[in-house]
Amino acid sequence: MKVAFIGLGVMGYPMAGHLSKAGHDVTVFNRTTAKAEAWSEDYKGAFAVTPAEAAKGADIVFTCVGNDDDLREVTCGDQGVFNGMTEGSILVDHTTASAEIARELASLAADKGIGFLDAPVSGGQAGAENGVLSVMVGGDQASFDKAEPVMDAYSKSIRLLGEAGAGQLAKMVNQICIAGLVQGLAEGVHFAKRAGLDAAQVFDVIQHGAAGSWQMVNRHQTMIDDEYDFGFAVDWMRKDLNIVLDEARKNGARLPITAIVDQFYADVQEMGGNRCDTSSLLMRLEKREK
Amino acid sequence: MKVAFIGLGVMGYPMAGHLSKAGHDVTVFNRTTAKAEAWSEDYKGAFAVTPAEAAKGADIVFTCVGNDDDLREVTCGDQGVFNGMTEGSILVDHTTASAEIARELASLAADKGIGFLDAPVSGGQAGAENGVLSVMVGGDQASFDKAEPVMDAYSKSIRLLGEAGAGQLAKMVNQICIAGLVQGLAEGVHFAKRAGLDAAQVFDVIQHGAAGSWQMVNRHQTMIDDEYDFGFAVDWMRKDLNIVLDEARKNGARLPITAIVDQFYADVQEMGGNRCDTSSLLMRLEKREK
Repeated sequence: MKVAFIGLGVMGYPMAGHLSKAGHDVTVFNRTTAKAEAWSEDYKGAFAVTPAEAAKGADIVFTCVGNDDDLREVTCGDQGVFNGMTEGSILVDHTTASAEIARELASLAADKGIGFLDAPVSGGQAGAENGVLSVMVGGDQASFDKAEPVMDAYSKSIRLLGEAGAGQLAKMVNQICIAGLVQGLAEGVHFAKRAGLDAAQVFDVIQHGAAGSWQMVNRHQTMIDDEYDFGFAVDWMRKDLNIVLDEARKNGARLPITAIVDQFYADVQEMGGNRCDTSSLLMRLEKREK
Repeated sequence: MKVAFIGLGVMGYPMAGHLSKAGHDVTVFNRTTAKAEAWSEDYKGAFAVTPAEAAKGADIVFTCVGNDDDLREVTCGDQGVFNGMTEGSILVDHTTASAEIARELASLAADKGIGFLDAPVSGGQAGAENGVLSVMVGGDQASFDKAEPVMDAYSKSIRLLGEAGAGQLAKMVNQICIAGLVQGLAEGVHFAKRAGLDAAQVFDVIQHGAAGSWQMVNRHQTMIDDEYDFGFAVDWMRKDLNIVLDEARKNGARLPITAIVDQFYADVQEMGGNRCDTSSLLMRLEKREK
């Protein structure tokens, strides 16, 4: 299938690579062209100098960029993909963005006879590299049925969860749950250290019970070791929580702890922890500069 | 082995039963004698009318009562187990209590030539009934080595984590992690409903990723269904969090979210949710009376 991939960040670069390895005819675009050239060498694919050019003739166009503004530019901008896509093709957005822009793009796409899916992912950089992402999708069934086998190249699970925006809203639920969970875990590790316990042994026991979580299993040791270089960065988490809190203001959901943890992440940023992973809430509790 | 079990609550009743079924010679005591009589019929064991009498001649005495005050009474009171136990025997306390009383009892026991282990459990009523509790133990290796094979009757994992008090401190870490985690999960479910998502489907997807937890796997559906009758009650959680926050005041740990979630549980109590399970933080967010 002829596809385009717009945005070769830590997620997009390997995702586009998996598409190429799966035998698709891939053309990429990246704001910094050097990265598109590197990708093109790594995976023997084509690159374009504008999103519109990359999208020309593609059956499916994928986007995976930073935020709503970036997404608006690479889709609706003068050189955006909508200026290259043709009727019957599909736009799949993997950016974690607002539900509002998902609905907006779905509507603009529909006017042009183009399908649209909002399809944020979870699983992080490792999930993208190993091709085992989870994809939360909003949109129509027909577009989903066409895009699903293609997304399969980098996914372990792909689920249609409702209309346009539902993928983004589901990703928000994911980030809300992580915020409270990671702060609870950080307080647990902090308390264990202050109490003079052998924290590694304690978590080795409690991770199998009612306090257990993916974060506890995968992060307790790195947290004990004061290492925060294992995944999703605080700057990105704040971007996501901003989207969450905006949406909650609209739908009336009360998110007291999510809102506070967002402020805690602001403290981590002020401590210089912008690129630390989300478990650096512990660093904040322990007031160490990083 | 000749053992005594003091306290036949929802945990102690089946735990003492497992000891009896494992072939131990069990004598029980319970404040309400009717329950001891019922236990005695169910499991063909003996019952006594004071803790001291139950403890007489026992190799190991187990206690599993409500709080520090109850524990002090059944151990150091006029009719407490210390007035029945003999040198060389071991006291194992399964109550979730303070680390301070654990150290106090360890010291009193040592003066009498009695071993002491603080051994709070996790796994809840179902874990006690099915004999698959996790036991977090503080104390000396010699007492642990003697008591471990006996506790095996109702446990799937038993771990010595340090000196007297270490079991209680480890249980506190467990409860701290649960507090933040469950509030995060409650906010996630609440948001999903407000956003008009099919919440069951969303959690079915995200539970396998970085937001996943035992609580999410086992409670999301009951929370969606607004059912809060599945385990550990809010009144008990507040008791535990009170112990946690007391200890944190002593060791200087900063537990901002744990402290707030404790207040949220106070709201749930005020709504009449004393006997609801800990996931009723969702009920509070949704402001329904129960």
